[in-house]
Amino acid sequence: AAAAGVAKLADATNSMFLLFAGALIFQMQLGFALLVTGAVRNKSAASVMLLHVVAPCVVGLCYFLFGFAMAFGSTPDANNPVIGSTFWALQPRDAFDSFSGSVSLALVWFQFTFATICATILLGAVSERATFVASIFSMVVVGGLAFPTVSHWLWSEYGWLSYGKLSGRLFGSGAFDLAGSGVVHVTGGAAALIAVILVGPRVGRYDEATRDSFSAHNVTLVCQGTFVLWAGFVVFNSSSVMVITESFVAAGRCLINTLLAGCTGGLTMLAISRLVSSHYSVLDVMNGVLAGLVGICSSCSIVLPYSAILTGSVCSLIFFFCEKAMLRFQIDDPVSAASLHLGAGIGGLLLTGFTAYPPYLRDAFPGRDSYPGGLFYGGDAPGALLGAQVVATISIIALVCLLLTPVLLGLKLCGVLVYSEEEQLMGADEAIHGGAAYNFNAEETSADLLTTW
Amino acid sequence: AAAAGVAKLADATNSMFLLFAGALIFQMQLGFALLVTGAVRNKSAASVMLLHVVAPCVVGLCYFLFGFAMAFGSTPDANNPVIGSTFWALQPRDAFDSFSGSVSLALVWFQFTFATICATILLGAVSERATFVASIFSMVVVGGLAFPTVSHWLWSEYGWLSYGKLSGRLFGSGAFDLAGSGVVHVTGGAAALIAVILVGPRVGRYDEATRDSFSAHNVTLVCQGTFVLWAGFVVFNSSSVMVITESFVAAGRCLINTLLAGCTGGLTMLAISRLVSSHYSVLDVMNGVLAGLVGICSSCSIVLPYSAILTGSVCSLIFFFCEKAMLRFQIDDPVSAASLHLGAGIGGLLLTGFTAYPPYLRDAFPGRDSYPGGLFYGGDAPGALLGAQVVATISIIALVCLLLTPVLLGLKLCGVLVYSEEEQLMGADEAIHGGAAYNFNAEETSADLLTTW
Amino acid sequence: AAAAGVAKLADATNSMFLLFAGALIFQMQLGFALLVTGAVRNKSAASVMLLHVVAPCVVGLCYFLFGFAMAFGSTPDANNPVIGSTFWALQPRDAFDSFSGSVSLALVWFQFTFATICATILLGAVSERATFVASIFSMVVVGGLAFPTVSHWLWSEYGWLSYGKLSGRLFGSGAFDLAGSGVVHVTGGAAALIAVILVGPRVGRYDEATRDSFSAHNVTLVCQGTFVLWAGFVVFNSSSVMVITESFVAAGRCLINTLLAGCTGGLTMLAISRLVSSHYSVLDVMNGVLAGLVGICSSCSIVLPYSAILTGSVCSLIFFFCEKAMLRFQIDDPVSAASLHLGAGIGGLLLTGFTAYPPYLRDAFPGRDSYPGGLFYGGDAPGALLGAQVVATISIIALVCLLLTPVLLGLKLCGVLVYSEEEQLMGADEAIHGGAAYNFNAEETSADLLTTW
Repeated sequence: AAAAGVAKLADATNSMFLLFAGALIFQMQLGFALLVTGAVRNKSAASVMLLHVVAPCVVGLCYFLFGFAMAFGSTPDANNPVIGSTFWALQPRDAFDSFSGSVSLALVWFQFTFATICATILLGAVSERATFVASIFSMVVVGGLAFPTVSHWLWSEYGWLSYGKLSGRLFGSGAFDLAGSGVVHVTGGAAALIAVILVGPRVGRYDEATRDSFSAHNVTLVCQGTFVLWAGFVVFNSSSVMVITESFVAAGRCLINTLLAGCTGGLTMLAISRLVSSHYSVLDVMNGVLAGLVGICSSCSIVLPYSAILTGSVCSLIFFFCEKAMLRFQIDDPVSAASLHLGAGIGGLLLTGFTAYPPYLRDAFPGRDSYPGGLFYGGDAPGALLGAQVVATISIIALVCLLLTPVLLGLKLCGVLVYSEEEQLMGADEAIHGGAAYNFNAEETSADLLTTW
Repeated sequence: AAAAGVAKLADATNSMFLLFAGALIFQMQLGFALLVTGAVRNKSAASVMLLHVVAPCVVGLCYFLFGFAMAFGSTPDANNPVIGSTFWALQPRDAFDSFSGSVSLALVWFQFTFATICATILLGAVSERATFVASIFSMVVVGGLAFPTVSHWLWSEYGWLSYGKLSGRLFGSGAFDLAGSGVVHVTGGAAALIAVILVGPRVGRYDEATRDSFSAHNVTLVCQGTFVLWAGFVVFNSSSVMVITESFVAAGRCLINTLLAGCTGGLTMLAISRLVSSHYSVLDVMNGVLAGLVGICSSCSIVLPYSAILTGSVCSLIFFFCEKAMLRFQIDDPVSAASLHLGAGIGGLLLTGFTAYPPYLRDAFPGRDSYPGGLFYGGDAPGALLGAQVVATISIIALVCLLLTPVLLGLKLCGVLVYSEEEQLMGADEAIHGGAAYNFNAEETSADLLTTW
Repeated sequence: AAAAGVAKLADATNSMFLLFAGALIFQMQLGFALLVTGAVRNKSAASVMLLHVVAPCVVGLCYFLFGFAMAFGSTPDANNPVIGSTFWALQPRDAFDSFSGSVSLALVWFQFTFATICATILLGAVSERATFVASIFSMVVVGGLAFPTVSHWLWSEYGWLSYGKLSGRLFGSGAFDLAGSGVVHVTGGAAALIAVILVGPRVGRYDEATRDSFSAHNVTLVCQGTFVLWAGFVVFNSSSVMVITESFVAAGRCLINTLLAGCTGGLTMLAISRLVSSHYSVLDVMNGVLAGLVGICSSCSIVLPYSAILTGSVCSLIFFFCEKAMLRFQIDDPVSAASLHLGAGIGGLLLTGFTAYPPYLRDAFPGRDSYPGGLFYGGDAPGALLGAQVVATISIIALVCLLLTPVLLGLKLCGVLVYSEEEQLMGADEAIHGGAAYNFNAEETSADLLTTW
């Protein structure tokens, strides 16, 4: 009786964990909204906010109807390595209710928050010129199709790339991506890069006369967004251990490693910013923190603190060079989403092939014969893990390319991919959404605007 | 010994659940503050913020002194169906400490957060013209008297309307309102409607010449507020199962149903907005999401996902038509609080009479002979639940009317209900609170204000 | 087996508690950032935000490398009452992993969030004129050295001031400071006072001609920050019981007492503000709430609700008189950090010597012979607790003075303590960080700026 009581309490505890973790991760949607809104021009502020509100609406419905099924809709009797095949719309109800113990619906909620974040990443990248309709289509493709598929590959115990695969792992190892440097950030970042290339830069972005008018309209909003994301990443990474009653020690490692990677990511960029531009650039440091956080997602539960420090610094550097490249090729990404999520995401995914600490892998997957780990530690099958990480990176990017490109090209053919020059000059808020975001009335409070506000 | 250990651990787990849930729900106060501040004119921004900070101060003291006693101050020996009658100021301490197991103080904290939200709803509706004093009096009435009484009726196991009543339930069924479509939103929304009618519109709101100057001064703040509220609603609804160690499966249902109702509420309004105004209106979509969330509060633990989708869409539609009516009758509610909380709240309360799924009611209240459910499912005593929901709706509105109207009329007689025309034109920030919310100094940073910020 | 299951589940539950509590407390960093940013002039907004982002980067690295070791790096074999001496950089890994049960890394994360808050307090006080470099040095001193030392004194079971000391307690009692009125707020507030005196006022702050141009540039941001901090304080205080599986009843007391102290702090200041200035000053009321919250940190788990009400009111009054004194002596503290954290912090620490309720101390430290409590209750060794609280207050201030003064004087000698007059007039955003925080483009959206936004 006591044992049954303990088991039930553990189910309740794990459900609570996913409930609160999901709620805190969902707040990251606000973080993205603030960051992107602050980074664009004031004439697009309301339009950006709206898209970030619509994102969970669209992804939520998709994830309920088919996303979760594609990702985790596998049973011992019905499974394949490429995609889930049951639990469409969480049906049949009886079978679903017994799936994954009693946490099943909490798990859907939790995974939905990841899907939303993944789909949201590209919104900032294409902001101010991709149409409202094109943005929504892209989110359906990324959050409803690409993310579920990739999460099946890497997170399902039947996925062909997964380190947790029950048998027949790639190179005898499989790829390890705890919290989604690959599943979330490479997927979302690759989509962002493809999209910015196809939609092209904003009108006037690289003209001599007008390029200076593209500054972030409100840096304090960008910083607010960074804070909200940072707090969210801590939960995002540590809750990815999922079953807290079994993996609470690993969750502790996630906390410290996430902290250290974010810190060193920020400090690295602070140093670079000072050396290169002789300013302490606010936006650069913010992005440095985020690059560290994106990079450590993959490995936060299975590396030593020194590796987290290394990961934070390296991913921050990768971000910096990606940004240089984007500028060089005149690709217009108002929030550096591609450099951040694709660049640092790939960095994190590959670094795991060097830094994964075998004893921690043993803790996570007890009872195996061998534990291929990072190249730094040799051990079983050296290089197998790194090889799997490389294959994972390439496969994710290829899939996103395959799914998103035709949709965007189709929208382009229909002439609904990008706002017209007039619409862009007016701004989406006035042109499409019926009014500006900011409406200050000054006449009544002061005769002299200049000195009063 | 192990069994005692499990019981103690369950107490700790339930306390932790209410602790964190309350903390996250308390963040909704910031959500309301942002939403209302953004929706008013800039000359009232600081005054609105202040009222939202004072709200928990006033309601907190009231709830400690008498609110909790009125709501849950019942024991097997001292109870009645209309109002609680013991634990005033949480005394006697010894008896209170043993009340409701060991979670008693966490429960007070948790319920306080609901009381604050209920009392806060009207602040937005009467903003910019109701006086500071009148706003505070209204919050005492709603948060200190109306909400505790209604929560006794519907949430106490002795309440005359409650589905959870131990015996003698209304129509053999009682009304079901898990997270407060009725207790929180109809109560707060009815108060908002009464208050906006009695205080009248803002000076110039419906004049041809000035009506266009009443736009939301900062749409990004409104959107921020919506996000914070959305994240809060998820916890608000799922934590209303209260005893997570027993009801974690129901909490999972709450998560998914809350998600789906919010999504479809938003998407429904997106479609309406496009069809009716040929714009994708930002504020409409925000309110659509919130309408769905308000509507699903009542039934989130006891309906199937399809019912949640239905609830979200219908409540979004109800909100839309309420708004049309408000405009038609020239009732001035700057944040659509009445349409949202009263309209969608009634919608949610009544829809529960159609959608409640009997097997889930059986899970929630084991060991009964019959489980009156939604009309869609027939079953025991068809129509009994719907009847009880109708009685609950009418009773709540009548009580709020009875308590709030005399207070507001009294304030009107004393001439302290509404700010004078001069005060309204100057704005409450300057007139009452000693200074404007925004004070930008431009002269030092730029010679040319127009092009720099 | 069941007993082992219960013990493991308790470890998991305690880890989860610290994980989420830390995540919510970390959000307070955003609260400080918003509060300070709103309170300064717009030309410093981005610079203030950046410092608040860099704070956790710097303190995180310090706390990992040596802070945690200084605070809690004691074992039965290696300990002293002044400072911890092992677990530098959380090494040796094996010994550390078995430290404090299985929650060790979650504990480091949790304590780090307190260190960051403590170090952040002075950022607002010295804003707009202390250099970027001086601010970072100060944070290293406060968050990396002072806070860890003080937390060893009062929170380690080997600390010379601690009520929880295993043997040989000061005056047979030791000082009690549950959530850090002393450890966090007196430490941070004393640092803020020392720093504002040494850096001096902002250029023009007390000149007749320019003093009015120092208003908070965005009061709504200040209010947002207050909300975020308030929600954070609730978790901050209640999670300071640390081991939720044992202390959940005490955590419930923390919730109610924190609520009441915040409420009465705000209402007290609302009354004062009305009486003294005939306005309901927004910023005053915000600070009143925060003063109550700072004051109750020390005693929230061990006092009766009436004492919490007293504490909130008294600390609010202390804040008010400290502010008067700061103005009188023309000390420039843009966010009242010294009055708030040092003033109300001392208030809370000393009031504990009057209000601590002995039976609650008995709950917290079972098995002792005597429980020196507050003077109001007499009991064992009356006055011993108050004496220890006084000694704690003086010791903390002396330590901070000793550590911070030489560093700031050294920076002054090197000429890098304060920005030059030109830099201050231009604002740190333009002068040091390469651009303004706000960049509104108006020309395209409207010909007439005055009426459109």
